[in-house]
Parts: sequence; C-alpha cells; structure tokens
Amino acid sequence: MQLLLTYDVSTIDPEGRRRLRQMAKLCEGYGHRVQKSVFEITCTDAELLTLLDGANRIIDPGEDSVRIYRLPANGFTALYRIGNAKPVPHHDPLIM
Amino acid sequence: MQLLLTYDVSTIDPEGRRRLRQMAKLCEGYGHRVQKSVFEITCTDAELLTLLDGANRIIDPGEDSVRIYRLPANGFTALYRIGNAKPVPHHDPLIM
Repeated sequence: MQLLLTYDVSTIDPEGRRRLRQMAKLCEGYGHRVQKSVFEITCTDAELLTLLDGANRIIDPGEDSVRIYRLPANGFTALYRIGNAKPVPHHDPLIM
Repeated sequence: MQLLLTYDVSTIDPEGRRRLRQMAKLCEGYGHRVQKSVFEITCTDAELLTLLDGANRIIDPGEDSVRIYRLPANGFTALYRIGNAKPVPHHDPLIM
C-alpha cells in the first residue's frame, strides 16, 4: 500500500528534539523523506503494524502527533509539486 | 476532491517567516490545518487552480516546497492517528 506519513514533534526541549531525530530515523527505514516531516511510504500491512508500533514507542502522545494517510495507487505520481518539491523514485525496496 | 497539502517554507530569515504566515493564511481559506504545515482540503477543480496560483505567488521556488496529494474519497477518515492527532470535521464549507 502507498502511505503518506506526516508528523509534528514538539522541539521545545532536548527530549523533544531527540524524539524528532528518532521519528525521522524510523521513517527513513520505511520510505522516502519528501519534506522535513513528511514521508512517502510503500509497505505491506505487516510493515505498517511495525511502523505504527515504532511511532507509538517514540512520540509523546500529549505533545506530538503522527498522521498516516492512505493514498491511491498513483498517489506518489499524481500530485502537484510547487517550488523545490522533487519527485521521489519509489522503485528501490527500502525496508531494512 | 479531497487533498492533503504539505509545505516546507524556509524560516531562516524574516522574509521566509512572512512567507510561512502567508502560506498558512492561504491554506486556512481552503481547508483544515491538521499539523503545523499540513492541511486537509476539500475543493473543486477551479478552487484547486486558485490555490495553486496563490501558493505559487507566495513561495520562494528555490527555498520552499509545496506538495498537494489527492486522497481517496475516505481519505480524511481512513487514516491512522497517533498522539494528539485529532480528527477534523469536514462538513462545514470553508471557502471564503
């Protein structure tokens, strides 16, 4: 399935900045970073479960938020890009 | 149509911070802010064109990026939310 993951992590303290780095690292294992806190992810149902589990372990539920949207099959190509929004190659398997 | 708009605007200088405020204001006229730089938008083709035009006028193409994804019909409800990611009511018409 094709997903778009976006997150907001509070960075007002060192703990938040650590969570931000951890979220980025987690997501980079599943997909392509297209903006600071936005990732395009292609994964299976099982991989989605481990991603959800990983995000739940990292974030502070009172401070941070993660949203994971299901995209249509052409979701990564049928989008509008403005400015230096680059297209992302999705053919290479990413799951480590 | 249902869209998800995400943007990254460089805020290293006052000009960038002004663009950030302008992008937020533009997008608030079209949809619901669900994270700092993420908006859920329901609009027509014509409204999408004016939104694209507005964004093009605001951003610095060398510094900033805007991505607008098409979501499936249930895109705003069939998502995974973690932490303080709140559901957003989409029944009220927003276009001013």
